[in-house]
Amino acid sequence: AAQGARKMEDYGRFLALLASTLLVGFVSVILSLVWVFHYREGLSWDGSAGEFNWHPVLIITGFVFIQGIAIIVYRLPWTWKCSKLLMKFIHAGLNTIAMILAIVSMVAVFDFHNAKNIPNMYSLHSWIGLTAVIFYSLQLFLGFAVFLLPFAPVHLRVALMPIHVYSGLTIFATVIATALMGITEKLIFALKSPAYSASPPEATLVNCLGLLLVIFGSLILWMASRPHWKRPPAENAKILRPIGATSEGTEAESTMTNSSNADKSDLRSNTEAAKKQNIKFDEAGQRSTM
Amino acid sequence: AAQGARKMEDYGRFLALLASTLLVGFVSVILSLVWVFHYREGLSWDGSAGEFNWHPVLIITGFVFIQGIAIIVYRLPWTWKCSKLLMKFIHAGLNTIAMILAIVSMVAVFDFHNAKNIPNMYSLHSWIGLTAVIFYSLQLFLGFAVFLLPFAPVHLRVALMPIHVYSGLTIFATVIATALMGITEKLIFALKSPAYSASPPEATLVNCLGLLLVIFGSLILWMASRPHWKRPPAENAKILRPIGATSEGTEAESTMTNSSNADKSDLRSNTEAAKKQNIKFDEAGQRSTM
Repeated sequence: AAQGARKMEDYGRFLALLASTLLVGFVSVILSLVWVFHYREGLSWDGSAGEFNWHPVLIITGFVFIQGIAIIVYRLPWTWKCSKLLMKFIHAGLNTIAMILAIVSMVAVFDFHNAKNIPNMYSLHSWIGLTAVIFYSLQLFLGFAVFLLPFAPVHLRVALMPIHVYSGLTIFATVIATALMGITEKLIFALKSPAYSASPPEATLVNCLGLLLVIFGSLILWMASRPHWKRPPAENAKILRPIGATSEGTEAESTMTNSSNADKSDLRSNTEAAKKQNIKFDEAGQRSTM
Repeated sequence: AAQGARKMEDYGRFLALLASTLLVGFVSVILSLVWVFHYREGLSWDGSAGEFNWHPVLIITGFVFIQGIAIIVYRLPWTWKCSKLLMKFIHAGLNTIAMILAIVSMVAVFDFHNAKNIPNMYSLHSWIGLTAVIFYSLQLFLGFAVFLLPFAPVHLRVALMPIHVYSGLTIFATVIATALMGITEKLIFALKSPAYSASPPEATLVNCLGLLLVIFGSLILWMASRPHWKRPPAENAKILRPIGATSEGTEAESTMTNSSNADKSDLRSNTEAAKKQNIKFDEAGQRSTM
């Protein structure tokens, strides 16, 4: 009963954090719209500043908010009864949407630059941003080939999962850093009289947007790296199979944040036999990340 | 013998990665010096641009490079024979040096701004940078009080360690993001004819510096988050003590990246009795992060 109460408390804490994260992400998207509609030229697709404005809106909506949700989608407790395959499709689908929005948002900038004879790809923002989009696309392609298609053997999935998780979180952090550089550039270029240094209302609003992006990123990274909030492994499927056989959920455990047995057993049907069996699997390296 | 060979290979991989990280960090510091001495006004402390130039040099040297080394100092295998207390002093000492350099580098900017009548604290760079320095100082102070002073009970250390690790890595990533914003600002403000958009050699050099900072940060985060590269726990000290008693090394294991038993047992004297004892400790939650 005490353990049940502790679990409910932990569940409540997860929900509160998730609600905060969604709120921060949602407010960020709204602020990006307020920025371009209230302070800038709105949205259009005609080579004008209105076309450029798709860039911050789509990056914040797709490459920050949707990517963030894609990262923590396995953590939502009410999805644990869904099949692992369905969750993989949702994870890959959200990341695909984020990638498309990121690419469209880059096209908007190139189009705008070319229409206005502004050079492309000269800034650190553009260098790191393009690198992030390329790595993100590679990550999506590799993740699809290894974890979604049924061909990769378990040992390859187990070996690549920690790299997949590390790359995903590092790319996500890099995307947020790139967004902060983009905000800095845009405010310096766009605010002339009064200048950025005079702190007009637009500067304050967009600085707050930047702060919210950092908070959003920090919350996603916290939720993604708590071992006790991981999707529980497909217990029986795994225990009943010999080592090396393919099983849905095998790679679910091999993330950057391996949980200890104490964490895992909390989430499980707690029979002594199952526990002992699990420890054996642990020692065989089935769950080990390396 | 096969396991021994695997360990040596893994040790070699760690050394290669460490050497690359040190090289990238070292080249970053050199590039920051080339930037301020070859392209800018050098270093001075007289309210001129030379005083401002301490800012990038000290941030890259202290707040990026030294902080990065402080993060991975427990990972260096040749320190595993040193006492945990000594390593804590080194970790805290490096972080203290980094904090002092970060504060001096901020004073340089405020001094320069005030001498030139440039407003302070208007940019997103300044907002996030100041926040990072404040959180970093809090982290150092709390870490000192909880993990270095002998007063905090083990259960508090165990509960706070995952938060300490998460905050540390998140602050480190935020510092690098802030440095990228700073580079962006400075290149836009300083390069006038030719402008940043004309990609003069200085712009290319400093963009490369920015890329190196991202690579340095990614390498540090990779090394810090591999469970099998963690300092092994103080085995006997722990096993021989009752749960709740203070023991050096107890909190060493409770990082963001809990390793599974399979990972840990690799690093241990492999007696069966010790293994069973460890599993018991695991189940008692002694090692659990939450």
